[in-house]
Amino acid sequence: MKKITVGVIGFGTIGTGVVKTLENNKELFQDRIGVPVDLKWVADIDIVRDRGIAVSAERLTTDGFKIVDDPEVDIVIELVGGCGIAKEFIVRALKNGKSVVTANKALLAEHGKELFEKEEKSDGTIAFEAAVAGGIPIIKVVRESFVANRIESIHGIINGTANYIFTKMAREKISFAQALKQAQELGYAEADPTLDVDGIDSAHKLVILGSLASSTIFSMEDCYIEGIRKISEIDIDYAEKFGYVIKLLAIYKNYNGQVQLRIHPTLIPDSHLLGSVMDSYNGIFVKGDVVGSTMFYGRGAGELPTASAVLADVVDIARAMVNDTLAQRKDFTRPRQTVKVTDISDIESRYYFRFTVIDQPGVLAEIAGILGRCKISISDVLQKNAVWAMSCR
Amino acid sequence: MKKITVGVIGFGTIGTGVVKTLENNKELFQDRIGVPVDLKWVADIDIVRDRGIAVSAERLTTDGFKIVDDPEVDIVIELVGGCGIAKEFIVRALKNGKSVVTANKALLAEHGKELFEKEEKSDGTIAFEAAVAGGIPIIKVVRESFVANRIESIHGIINGTANYIFTKMAREKISFAQALKQAQELGYAEADPTLDVDGIDSAHKLVILGSLASSTIFSMEDCYIEGIRKISEIDIDYAEKFGYVIKLLAIYKNYNGQVQLRIHPTLIPDSHLLGSVMDSYNGIFVKGDVVGSTMFYGRGAGELPTASAVLADVVDIARAMVNDTLAQRKDFTRPRQTVKVTDISDIESRYYFRFTVIDQPGVLAEIAGILGRCKISISDVLQKNAVWAMSCR
Repeated sequence: MKKITVGVIGFGTIGTGVVKTLENNKELFQDRIGVPVDLKWVADIDIVRDRGIAVSAERLTTDGFKIVDDPEVDIVIELVGGCGIAKEFIVRALKNGKSVVTANKALLAEHGKELFEKEEKSDGTIAFEAAVAGGIPIIKVVRESFVANRIESIHGIINGTANYIFTKMAREKISFAQALKQAQELGYAEADPTLDVDGIDSAHKLVILGSLASSTIFSMEDCYIEGIRKISEIDIDYAEKFGYVIKLLAIYKNYNGQVQLRIHPTLIPDSHLLGSVMDSYNGIFVKGDVVGSTMFYGRGAGELPTASAVLADVVDIARAMVNDTLAQRKDFTRPRQTVKVTDISDIESRYYFRFTVIDQPGVLAEIAGILGRCKISISDVLQKNAVWAMSCR
Repeated sequence: MKKITVGVIGFGTIGTGVVKTLENNKELFQDRIGVPVDLKWVADIDIVRDRGIAVSAERLTTDGFKIVDDPEVDIVIELVGGCGIAKEFIVRALKNGKSVVTANKALLAEHGKELFEKEEKSDGTIAFEAAVAGGIPIIKVVRESFVANRIESIHGIINGTANYIFTKMAREKISFAQALKQAQELGYAEADPTLDVDGIDSAHKLVILGSLASSTIFSMEDCYIEGIRKISEIDIDYAEKFGYVIKLLAIYKNYNGQVQLRIHPTLIPDSHLLGSVMDSYNGIFVKGDVVGSTMFYGRGAGELPTASAVLADVVDIARAMVNDTLAQRKDFTRPRQTVKVTDISDIESRYYFRFTVIDQPGVLAEIAGILGRCKISISDVLQKNAVWAMSCR
């Protein structure tokens, strides 16, 4: 091979980062692949807007299919997002024997089974480091570096928007609504913040990570999802008084022969490393049966961090193409196990309760009585005016 | 290939972890490589001692050369350590066309140039994930995941013993000597702690990491090394009052077209993630021009964490052998650049001074005067009895 030809579909934030980095670190790519990377195409609905990087007119197109159908293109970089036309691009690229690099977590979480079956039958491969936790190379770590391990658990702060909101609420003692508004003003949250604050984006990523950890393909239905809208500044305050911080955690747990997949706000001891992951940063705590406890930290989104992950995949695939070993890549994503997922109602864990009660004698006794009858023991209690908070197990 | 045959030389702590994990997670390896891994040999001077894992007598040998000369052996796992006979094993294994997996940081840092030249000419490859930071997959991350990046800086706590000592000194307000004694009693420090407390072990690892980051091969002479023996509990206390913790840092910095490689005790703001890396854990902060700030955390030593890294390399090489693509691995370690290293005396940075002075009027004025004439400005001053501590820039 004399060169590797790539086409980018989607000239938004990440696409711009990819195009910039391909240009700025050109000689790195040539050096590390052995042949140059030729960016032949950039497709977007809007090819007029200034993206801060010059792309010559003959490389710009509004038609993504032109890229997936171009026989010269080796690797299609899909950065459109969503489960609509993006899926069509990927399916057709695979059908045409091309490899695909994507950051599309929603598509992989919701149509992973179908896409990986199509990959299996094709001459191409799908790479998706950028789909989970942006610049943090967690896919490669779980898949390759921890290959000698059974993954026991993953605890991830993998939604930067939710983490930014909690950080703001804790630091500035403001409400969820105020913090969300700030996040929106700064561009950390969308006008419609549903995907982020309702935990869906985290669930997309957890389904992908969990699938790799379990050598299977989970679906969104396997994942319990609870967002952060109901957390008030009172909870943040009580958590602090108990010695915790609140984070939206994505939890994978391999326990008693079953797997738990859940997204919910969680109290983390403030001395834990994950408790120090602030602002829009991501942090992922992974426990393997051999390696023990590890953590990975970095930017989970943004133009350049995500471009770093996209381009690591491009180099991986390009090197495999130059050496004619693409098939080797696919083995890792081939599902090999059927795994039973534990229903959320069957999971026992410590819990945090907050009660707003009528302020009269005997209230705590009554609450404690009910909890006792349900075999829930109380480890800490705080009371302020008519609000009782309890840490229970 | 029907199977991958491996031999372990060195049945100490890591060797035991490797043998245990190969046995316990047998089906993982078969599954992920495609063929089984056959542990044909385990060599050690002492093959009588009980290591807590059964190895049949016909697999045990006291002669490592039997392994490197056995035509059936594909991968030699060198866990002897040091620059003596270990080097002979590796050189002969390469000569015999075998691949080598090693955790030997001293050997790679001191004879890397020679060994990688020999690797280049051989049919084998040298893999060394376990040589830096045990279970943390930092070699793969820098080499593969951050392949699209120019590495701007690395700040690593990569010696668990030194970190354990500092953690103890800070928590229990004890002296260096007392903390060292505790570390020795727990087996975290050797009877002769020189390699750890004088920064040499950290330097070995930094030379390897820095070489990868710069695409060159540095030598130990390129690295400035200062250990932790001179740090007293007073310094830990003053640092805390200034809002810092003291850590032994391994620093790689690509600055002004030159590279800095230095090991020394460093004041880290206590809010920084690296400041939360406690006990014998390792933490490595990496900044890439594309990915931004990232951190990697985990156990830097110990039987199983290091075995996890060794076996990730074994799987990488085994997969490459099964797919006949070993040559591809070598490109990454081929030195491609000449890099100028900045002398420590030419490096400007913030600094911490402690003076024990005769307690009389005018002393601070005099010290401040001297610093001022040297164009050093003082940002913080603390005084207790006749001891002055200053944070300067």
